[in-house]
Amino acid sequence: MRDLAEGLLDPIPVLDHGFVRLVDCMPRAVEEDGETADHAIARAARVSYQAGTRTSRSDRGLIRYLMRHWHTSPFEMVELKFHAKMPMFVARQWVRHRTASINEISARYSVLPEEVYRPEPGDIRPQSTTNRQGRGDEALDAECTERSLASMDRVAEGAFGAYRSMLEDNVARETARGVLPVNTYTEWYWKANLLNVMRFLQLRLDPHAQMEIRVYAEAMGSLVARLAPWTWEAFEEYWRHGQRFSAPEWAAIVAELDEDALKRIEGRLVDVQSPGELREFSVRLRAAKPE
Amino acid sequence: MRDLAEGLLDPIPVLDHGFVRLVDCMPRAVEEDGETADHAIARAARVSYQAGTRTSRSDRGLIRYLMRHWHTSPFEMVELKFHAKMPMFVARQWVRHRTASINEISARYSVLPEEVYRPEPGDIRPQSTTNRQGRGDEALDAECTERSLASMDRVAEGAFGAYRSMLEDNVARETARGVLPVNTYTEWYWKANLLNVMRFLQLRLDPHAQMEIRVYAEAMGSLVARLAPWTWEAFEEYWRHGQRFSAPEWAAIVAELDEDALKRIEGRLVDVQSPGELREFSVRLRAAKPE
Amino acid sequence: MRDLAEGLLDPIPVLDHGFVRLVDCMPRAVEEDGETADHAIARAARVSYQAGTRTSRSDRGLIRYLMRHWHTSPFEMVELKFHAKMPMFVARQWVRHRTASINEISARYSVLPEEVYRPEPGDIRPQSTTNRQGRGDEALDAECTERSLASMDRVAEGAFGAYRSMLEDNVARETARGVLPVNTYTEWYWKANLLNVMRFLQLRLDPHAQMEIRVYAEAMGSLVARLAPWTWEAFEEYWRHGQRFSAPEWAAIVAELDEDALKRIEGRLVDVQSPGELREFSVRLRAAKPE
Amino acid sequence: MRDLAEGLLDPIPVLDHGFVRLVDCMPRAVEEDGETADHAIARAARVSYQAGTRTSRSDRGLIRYLMRHWHTSPFEMVELKFHAKMPMFVARQWVRHRTASINEISARYSVLPEEVYRPEPGDIRPQSTTNRQGRGDEALDAECTERSLASMDRVAEGAFGAYRSMLEDNVARETARGVLPVNTYTEWYWKANLLNVMRFLQLRLDPHAQMEIRVYAEAMGSLVARLAPWTWEAFEEYWRHGQRFSAPEWAAIVAELDEDALKRIEGRLVDVQSPGELREFSVRLRAAKPE
Ligand SMILES: Cc1cc2nc3c(=O)[nH]c(=O)nc-3n(C[C@H](O)[C@H](O)[C@H](O)COP(=O)(O)OP(=O)(O)OC[C@H]3O[C@@H](n4cnc5c(N)ncnc54)[C@H](O)[C@@H]3O)c2cc1C
Ligand SMILES: Cc1cc2nc3c(=O)[nH]c(=O)nc-3n(C[C@H](O)[C@H](O)[C@H](O)COP(=O)(O)OP(=O)(O)OC[C@H]3O[C@@H](n4cnc5c(N)ncnc54)[C@H](O)[C@@H]3O)c2cc1C
Ligand SMILES: Cc1cc2nc3c(=O)[nH]c(=O)nc-3n(C[C@H](O)[C@H](O)[C@H](O)COP(=O)(O)OP(=O)(O)OC[C@H]3O[C@@H](n4cnc5c(N)ncnc54)[C@H](O)[C@@H]3O)c2cc1C
Ligand SMILES: Cc1cc2nc3c(=O)[nH]c(=O)nc-3n(C[C@H](O)[C@H](O)[C@H](O)COP(=O)(O)OP(=O)(O)OC[C@H]3O[C@@H](n4cnc5c(N)ncnc54)[C@H](O)[C@@H]3O)c2cc1C
Repeated sequence: MRDLAEGLLDPIPVLDHGFVRLVDCMPRAVEEDGETADHAIARAARVSYQAGTRTSRSDRGLIRYLMRHWHTSPFEMVELKFHAKMPMFVARQWVRHRTASINEISARYSVLPEEVYRPEPGDIRPQSTTNRQGRGDEALDAECTERSLASMDRVAEGAFGAYRSMLEDNVARETARGVLPVNTYTEWYWKANLLNVMRFLQLRLDPHAQMEIRVYAEAMGSLVARLAPWTWEAFEEYWRHGQRFSAPEWAAIVAELDEDALKRIEGRLVDVQSPGELREFSVRLRAAKPE
Repeated sequence: MRDLAEGLLDPIPVLDHGFVRLVDCMPRAVEEDGETADHAIARAARVSYQAGTRTSRSDRGLIRYLMRHWHTSPFEMVELKFHAKMPMFVARQWVRHRTASINEISARYSVLPEEVYRPEPGDIRPQSTTNRQGRGDEALDAECTERSLASMDRVAEGAFGAYRSMLEDNVARETARGVLPVNTYTEWYWKANLLNVMRFLQLRLDPHAQMEIRVYAEAMGSLVARLAPWTWEAFEEYWRHGQRFSAPEWAAIVAELDEDALKRIEGRLVDVQSPGELREFSVRLRAAKPE
Repeated sequence: MRDLAEGLLDPIPVLDHGFVRLVDCMPRAVEEDGETADHAIARAARVSYQAGTRTSRSDRGLIRYLMRHWHTSPFEMVELKFHAKMPMFVARQWVRHRTASINEISARYSVLPEEVYRPEPGDIRPQSTTNRQGRGDEALDAECTERSLASMDRVAEGAFGAYRSMLEDNVARETARGVLPVNTYTEWYWKANLLNVMRFLQLRLDPHAQMEIRVYAEAMGSLVARLAPWTWEAFEEYWRHGQRFSAPEWAAIVAELDEDALKRIEGRLVDVQSPGELREFSVRLRAAKPE
Repeated sequence: MRDLAEGLLDPIPVLDHGFVRLVDCMPRAVEEDGETADHAIARAARVSYQAGTRTSRSDRGLIRYLMRHWHTSPFEMVELKFHAKMPMFVARQWVRHRTASINEISARYSVLPEEVYRPEPGDIRPQSTTNRQGRGDEALDAECTERSLASMDRVAEGAFGAYRSMLEDNVARETARGVLPVNTYTEWYWKANLLNVMRFLQLRLDPHAQMEIRVYAEAMGSLVARLAPWTWEAFEEYWRHGQRFSAPEWAAIVAELDEDALKRIEGRLVDVQSPGELREFSVRLRAAKPE
């Protein structure tokens, strides 16, 4: 087992004042002699199967098998610890993922530095018309954008001015911080196992997630991709970019596909999938087929 | 809010000496004035959306929306408490679902009754040849079956004989119980929220789960279907009987479907899906379409 | 089992715009025929002990036994659901208790109402000199207090002015809300089992907790006291108002107590404790006694 | 950061066929340059306090402070992974600690080896008369002991004989294993953070825990003591060997102690406690003192 490659521990800048950096990983091995965190997953999975699978299946194949069958427990055997700095409104979304351990800076102990998130002009957008929770794809007109940024600056200045003056008056920090906008940066250590990191990424890499948390998820994903490359590959194929269809949807689709079409579909996968995966796929393809 | 329909609290027999019975449900309302646990889910979801959605979407539609978008937190707002009695090897699988609260009979305090699981002859089957962890579909020959049942009976008798004689010698119960076979019945109270009950059911209703735990999952599913009928319907359509395809698989499938086929597929769903669901489906259908 | 007493579901006002109200309780029984949530705890505990304890110990005695021996699992068998409205900085502390289910109002979907926490003048206090994380007991001079309140009002007005004007410019709500101060109110459904409610109360009723979350904990405690009176009594005696001493501390204390003193101490408890509790206490009293 | 000291990864034999061994630890540092897992705890705690505490308090002092104030989150920043082999009845107790990740050998995939726990003769004891759940301190008479061991051997032999013959008849492994006694060994990977490892140890090092799980807890404790020596020291002083008194108990005790006695008690701790800890202790000592 070797130490982490140097670059892996460098902070990745996110938004205007934020970052994510890897603090530690269990196991602390990567990219040397082909040893990555993937091997710790495979090793744990093999406790279940004992000798049986030791020779028959490569670690990569095993990881793909675990991922597509939702045998999630071996992915819990890898643990990641991050240090991150982000606006409070991002922290408020992030903290909702409860299967993690957190140590956050305390605004009762500490005076928070004057760092407030200010969106890039292009990120100020109109309320989305199709997706009630997000913003649209189009730009806002330049005037509105400018007015918004000016408003934000004014609020931030006013709030930090009030904060500083209350602290000068010796008002308790826990009271004074009440004026700070949720755009203010906070920071924390955040530690979770790889399964729950992937659950987090699945939800927060999604286009429905707010852009400002998505960029943190992307930075974290880029680290996972290096620490556990086979797991990441499988995550992308099966979870992130996979497609789910309800029973009636799949019935409606499969009605278009005769046996010849199904054969052609399988043919396209022969070079991509292992024989075992292909066998399972064939069964699933035909499962909803009306007799 | 009304009380639970009487029949809901009756024990459902499972295997030869086991059962599952509903002890309590939050909310304690069902099937009266159309009030079921589904409404508690919708009400919690509406805390997030406030007035916005109150009129525009029926509770059933909202639940289907939550289910297919993995907005899982409102399903945690319903809580179920079961009393169950099952063989220890089933309990050993069941207990692995950690997001539940348990009170189990203690074999340190109590003398366990002489109740041992004895499979139906038809359930004694050969090791599966395709699925390394389960049993095959064919029967075992009658002689082997009989020999197995006789073995099981002999072991059970011998073990309980030894147990009783050690207890007569005043050996501590915690030591004496060491001889009992994992076919011995145990019992517990088991309480979890509806989300985690569904996660449990998803894994334990699956054909890969051992038959002896699947029958408990089926009994619990039949209760959920009455307590929260819309949630159950959506669970079956999206989670249980839905189909998942990896990115390469879906690319291989969609290559068979020209725009006319996609239109016909949509046409089949017009009467089944709400306009919103259909719109989302159309996007997903075409998402992986090469330009 | 009867329904909840009416008054139990009324909102309890907390701070200037906030409240806590009980939405539901499992079991839905209270104060009738002596049936409270306490009985659901005892019933679950008795699954472990079976017939053995049924007659020998009253439910109250059993609950006290469970509480002082940290047999915590039966307390998980009671579930509480609250609706609460509180400043965001309070929500940020509260959400850190991960063993709960939450549905919070979304500032991406909804426009937040202009409700901002404004402390009572007497609650504006200097930074504590002994406790680095809190505020002191003394008042701040009147001028500073007034200046602080004026600052807070100004920030709130400025922030909500900016918020409104951005919304008028059709800026996405998720972006506009970035200017709101953490004193702004949010609301949620919050559901947890009684064990974790007590863990929450233990930490947040403590004088080290910030006053603004303590008042929510007090309101919730008053509800628990009615729903599960014996559990509450035991919680107060053993957990909340109990004393913990480290090994060296207790050794230093017990060195002052000769056997006569220990006897007198026991004598004071004869009318308060059950014989079993007293027996255990006697053992603990003498455990650290040097031979 | 250095690698783990060699000896730390050696299996520790427990019971007749079992063991515990450390598989991995986050951080992977120990006993070199004074760097142990303790430092990862202190570093995480300092995220909360920022510069404020950096110089003022040693890491050891900080850890003691966290431990006695139940600031538990920094202890979650250390993660431990163990490989253990133990009788199934021990695994059934162990698995109840839900805040861990597990990969266990599957008796559906694998044929279990013929390894059955056989107590040492001296560990076969009568049912306890004072503690309804355990065994007494006295020995059982030699004849009963021998009879018990002979029974156990007979059951084990009979069960494994039946198991083997069913497997020869090609009965599915998941069915055949039903005859195995709960004394049969199983094994798993078990991973948890240090807080939850300590919660586990607190409950399972206790004299009320069954001896056969206590010996595993002791082996794990010996590893924690090397990996995080200051945390272990504080765990022992405050949690494990600390004393808890209910409010009425402490009132009864303190009634024996006049101000002179309290002063003498404090005097005994002057060389043991830091000034801060002593100050807190003095407050607690007098808190319950009637005015
Ligand atoms: C006075 C005070 C000051 C505080 N100051 C700070 C501060 O400066 N910085 C800061 O970051 N926090 C601070 N906190 C928050 C504190 O660190 C805890 O997050 C909070 O009190 C919740 O406690 P908990 O973890 O015991 O509760 P819960 O999250 O409800 O957990 C209860 C128990 O469940 C188990 N558990 C729950 N979730 C998990 C999981 N994902 N993995 C493993 N085990 C789990 C653990 O055994 C845990 O102890 C402070 C809290 C208080 C009361
Ligand atoms: C001497 C002894 C005797 C026992 N006898 C019995 C018995 O007769 N019958 C029996 O059934 N059990 C018995 N137990 C087991 C006991 O009830 C607990 O299950 C076990 O000790 C694990 O403790 P825990 O729940 O604190 O641990 P964990 O499961 O690790 O939980 C730690 C903390 O995390 C939080 N948490 C974890 N998971 C959840 C969740 N899903 N939901 C909410 N909060 C969660 C809780 O705050 C919990 O206290 C006994 C235990 C001991 C030590
Ligand atoms: C796009 C988007 C929009 C959202 N909008 C809203 C909103 O409007 N309002 C709102 O309140 N939230 C909202 N959320 C947050 C969402 O409800 C979840 O809280 C968040 O996504 C965390 O997901 P989780 O619960 O799966 O993660 P985790 O908390 O990490 O949980 C993972 C799994 O662990 C189990 N688990 C963890 N903790 C517990 C526990 N205490 N008890 C039982 N099981 C547990 C469950 O099976 C859970 O699914 C939104 C999230 C997204 C991605
Ligand atoms: C067919 C089948 C075969 C199996 N074979 C084996 C086997 O050979 N060996 C084996 O060991 N197991 C086996 N299992 C058990 C499996 O590994 C899981 O333990 C079990 O299915 C419970 O699933 P879960 O973890 O999703 O459930 P839960 O424990 O209920 O967890 C739900 C989710 O909550 C979160 N969560 C809960 N607790 C924690 C925690 N402590 N820390 C972090 N996140 C948490 C996670 O996101 C988790 O996915 C098998 C299961 C099935 C269905």
